[in-house]
Amino acid sequence: MDEINLFQKKMQDNDLDAYIIPTSDYHMSEYVSDFFKSRAYLSGFTGSAGTLVVTKEKAYLWTDGRYFIQAAMQIEGKPIELMKMGQPDVPTINEFLAEYFNKEENNNLGFDGKVMSTSDVLKLKEKLPSKVKFVTNIDLVNLLWSNRPDLPWSLIYKLSRYFSGKNYSDKIKSVRAYLEENKLDYLVLSSLEDQAWLYNLRANDVNHTPVFLAFSVITAQNVILFTDNKKVDLTVEKYLNENEITLKEYNEIYDYLRTIKEKKVQINFNKANYELYNALVGRDNVIINEEDPTLLMKAIKNPTEIKNIKTAHERDAVAMVKFMYYLKTNFGKTEMTEISLSDYLEKLRRKNKGFVDLSFNTICAFNDHGAMMHYSATKETDAKIEKGGFLLVDSGGHYMEGTTDITRTFALGKITDKMKTHFTTVLKSVIALDQAVFMKGCSGLNLDILARGPIWRLGLDYKCGTGHGVGYLLSVHEAPNGFRWKVVPERNDSHELVPGMVTTDEPGIYLENKYGIRTENELLCIEKESNEWGTFYGFETITYCPIDLDAIKATMLSKEEKEWLNDYHQKVYDIVSPSLTPEEQEWLKEYTKKI
Amino acid sequence: MDEINLFQKKMQDNDLDAYIIPTSDYHMSEYVSDFFKSRAYLSGFTGSAGTLVVTKEKAYLWTDGRYFIQAAMQIEGKPIELMKMGQPDVPTINEFLAEYFNKEENNNLGFDGKVMSTSDVLKLKEKLPSKVKFVTNIDLVNLLWSNRPDLPWSLIYKLSRYFSGKNYSDKIKSVRAYLEENKLDYLVLSSLEDQAWLYNLRANDVNHTPVFLAFSVITAQNVILFTDNKKVDLTVEKYLNENEITLKEYNEIYDYLRTIKEKKVQINFNKANYELYNALVGRDNVIINEEDPTLLMKAIKNPTEIKNIKTAHERDAVAMVKFMYYLKTNFGKTEMTEISLSDYLEKLRRKNKGFVDLSFNTICAFNDHGAMMHYSATKETDAKIEKGGFLLVDSGGHYMEGTTDITRTFALGKITDKMKTHFTTVLKSVIALDQAVFMKGCSGLNLDILARGPIWRLGLDYKCGTGHGVGYLLSVHEAPNGFRWKVVPERNDSHELVPGMVTTDEPGIYLENKYGIRTENELLCIEKESNEWGTFYGFETITYCPIDLDAIKATMLSKEEKEWLNDYHQKVYDIVSPSLTPEEQEWLKEYTKKI
Repeated sequence: MDEINLFQKKMQDNDLDAYIIPTSDYHMSEYVSDFFKSRAYLSGFTGSAGTLVVTKEKAYLWTDGRYFIQAAMQIEGKPIELMKMGQPDVPTINEFLAEYFNKEENNNLGFDGKVMSTSDVLKLKEKLPSKVKFVTNIDLVNLLWSNRPDLPWSLIYKLSRYFSGKNYSDKIKSVRAYLEENKLDYLVLSSLEDQAWLYNLRANDVNHTPVFLAFSVITAQNVILFTDNKKVDLTVEKYLNENEITLKEYNEIYDYLRTIKEKKVQINFNKANYELYNALVGRDNVIINEEDPTLLMKAIKNPTEIKNIKTAHERDAVAMVKFMYYLKTNFGKTEMTEISLSDYLEKLRRKNKGFVDLSFNTICAFNDHGAMMHYSATKETDAKIEKGGFLLVDSGGHYMEGTTDITRTFALGKITDKMKTHFTTVLKSVIALDQAVFMKGCSGLNLDILARGPIWRLGLDYKCGTGHGVGYLLSVHEAPNGFRWKVVPERNDSHELVPGMVTTDEPGIYLENKYGIRTENELLCIEKESNEWGTFYGFETITYCPIDLDAIKATMLSKEEKEWLNDYHQKVYDIVSPSLTPEEQEWLKEYTKKI
Repeated sequence: MDEINLFQKKMQDNDLDAYIIPTSDYHMSEYVSDFFKSRAYLSGFTGSAGTLVVTKEKAYLWTDGRYFIQAAMQIEGKPIELMKMGQPDVPTINEFLAEYFNKEENNNLGFDGKVMSTSDVLKLKEKLPSKVKFVTNIDLVNLLWSNRPDLPWSLIYKLSRYFSGKNYSDKIKSVRAYLEENKLDYLVLSSLEDQAWLYNLRANDVNHTPVFLAFSVITAQNVILFTDNKKVDLTVEKYLNENEITLKEYNEIYDYLRTIKEKKVQINFNKANYELYNALVGRDNVIINEEDPTLLMKAIKNPTEIKNIKTAHERDAVAMVKFMYYLKTNFGKTEMTEISLSDYLEKLRRKNKGFVDLSFNTICAFNDHGAMMHYSATKETDAKIEKGGFLLVDSGGHYMEGTTDITRTFALGKITDKMKTHFTTVLKSVIALDQAVFMKGCSGLNLDILARGPIWRLGLDYKCGTGHGVGYLLSVHEAPNGFRWKVVPERNDSHELVPGMVTTDEPGIYLENKYGIRTENELLCIEKESNEWGTFYGFETITYCPIDLDAIKATMLSKEEKEWLNDYHQKVYDIVSPSLTPEEQEWLKEYTKKI
């Protein structure tokens, strides 16, 4: 019997007409650990995004364009219908459920409220007939899943002031000032990154994100950290005691929230799972749905963090330059594949002082693979780097000194004039945004056209933002800053830019079945000038790696653009060359020469 | 006895504790006719913006930075306190009234609900204690104002299809489709421009805006036009009859609205005066506050309008070029002042075929006067154009073929290198926006930085939008399109750009006590390309007048910018020269030569 049929029996036992299995952990994290891969377990579909809805009659899998082919293959032969998101005539999940529950015989909807955000559930409630009963305090998959992995476990460690730049005691003061200003009795935090930032603690619970599963409840008097106590060793326990942080077990949060009554409680509906919200309602609490105050505090890096981040980028640059040297000098001589090159680059990074982890799975994509924005090489797809073309490498590292994210596209062998035109256009885009001067108050929405303009002028576009915020030894994708021309509410990245924010600048050109070009630097927002007209901001580039001169058409660059590139390359040489061998130095000289 | 004291007696007679006198007509128009200048009558302050609040004890005049000096002079000796808007410690009118009505003895607030927008009154109601009684069906100033001017009167005339490009019957079909789509029983229109557009009718009720005071009520079956019937001659009456438009007297709208009950009625709270709203509430009507559907329809010019607008600009260009010739060849020889030059330019415009009126009062501002963005020369300030410097001329005309708005800044005599740098920077800004290519869905918010960027880079800014929509023989400032980097709700100019919209491109540099530079062209939004990436839009420049080569530093321009300027000047020459004398032609050749 198929898992779906077994699952439908469990639904029947629980008197449920439909059941939703999304892809999320209890914190709405970007990446989830194996414990949370219920949808993959039940459907067989292993992609990073997808939602399974099982009804009494059938099962439906929603996923997006990246995964149509993979999903179809993985669910073949199962009683699951693929729902291609965004295709005409394909309803959204909420639309589908609304129709399903319009039928008289359907009344009970189930899902694990801990893996659905409060805002998603409230939206769904609005959409469904009022007769529908929501059963949310169950995890039905768990009843079937005999060899389910454990919840992630890793030891929590402390980030010293040398790395964090700001003690917990100062951070909690700012948070409490927010509570006071907004007359809040309680603040409930769900975001793993925000809590790691607040406590200056890190761990390794989530792939490529050095955080630990936890919730926090903060009042004017108390701070309670709900996390698996086994993750807390004596050093951290002492640190928590010294800072008057009460430790409770991870799952106690729900019962704890049920003790709160007639209070003003802030909780971010986009981050808080529905069971947290559920635990607060019904006792005359005033529940405020607002952005966590820690989000902005965390995004504005302090001077120590900024100094450290630059150090991390300098070390990361050495790995990148050595990689580029290896690639350029071995192309056509040594056998290389996308995976072997990813591994080679990872080894170089791991040698760097302070290295903790890759900040995400390296994207190493040759020619047509580069046109797939989320390509990840597998044994089956692993391309040999033999003939010429573009190799796109998007990678980064977590260091004790911060997190990096860099993309370079390398020309190998002979490339066409058109490829050079496209590469140089992307460079023009990178420079235009990098060089922006703008007034306090601007957000990425105002600036995006600087990068996108040169590419739009060619009648091309890239179907993603131009850049995202980057955490400090935290998530490589961090709100609330970013570059994008339209507001995308779930991205929450249109906050005005503030000095201390770090954002990537990564325009690109992606031609299906041909190649992808992306050049990505990180930009630190800085103040340029303050005068009678107001305050002007700009950026400082903090990523240091050559932009492949083999692919640049100098005639397309203005005097100012050439100056930018020459200055940039000089800086790359100055920073990186001391860590190179004489051969590498000589090679780098050539790849950073003035044009 | 002062008018204020007499007014306070009238207030006492009516048992009012405070009374508000704003600057508006019954339609929230940008310009108002003399009948509506109650605030000027009572306070003596004649500026274009200001609100008088009279309490039992005292009177207070709010106005903005443009008018601090003038207002102080004009109210001197009167029992009126000047409230400088935006200055620290100066409350807003609503804050002031909230405090005033917090006092136990103050309970009754009066104003003429016909000159306050519904949204302003509703906001005020929210702010004031619930005990406050609003008396809004009176015009207390009228009781004192013995020689009050009449309501404006002008004859309504019809715009033939040759000019409008679209018959009323087609326009009303689109409006009714909107009613149906939104399940509306009634649409109430207050905007004078929208009604003039809908009916293809024009008049001359408002200074420089060819409209007539009117309200409209539209249903699936009926269209009722409320306007002074004396404005309607036999031709127009016949036209109204033919089109089944019922004519009623202007003031009957209020009683008419009071007959509507249990209906769904759309009315734009920002445009509709409070008495209109008042007439609708209380009989179980569902009142929908939305933008008038006519706003967007009117902003997207049809092919005939576009053709005509270009014709209007071509004629306007002849006046501008002849003016520039006169200015450049007579400077230092003939006595010229700001006013004499404005008059000279107006005479040239009036000679043009199809000319109806100036589209606004010409701004002709020499040197330091040019730094004041809303400068209007008076006998007292009228500067002689003798020594060198910048003369900023912002002007435009209403033609049967459309409305123009153009600014040129002319260099006279010797100007400094810095002045040339500033002038050339403004030109770079104009070109950058003009040359934008952008995806369907972009609004002015996305594009503004293209114009503002080069000026921000100098550490300068202009404290206004970069551009505004322009009507067709209607208001020279037309929503909902514009260029601006921040949303300003009351401007309502952040709609996505759509082919057919006309928007000005007018960045500037304004240095107090020194000079002002503004170069303003009008841009027609056009489709550039539609392909697998989406639809791309851009602009076509429709203003034709040389940009003063005497002030341009060619070394600051890129190859592409020079090309743009040379192509533009060639086009100006080709369009204008056939209408010039041989001397003027020879001169224009020089001022449109390649650089």
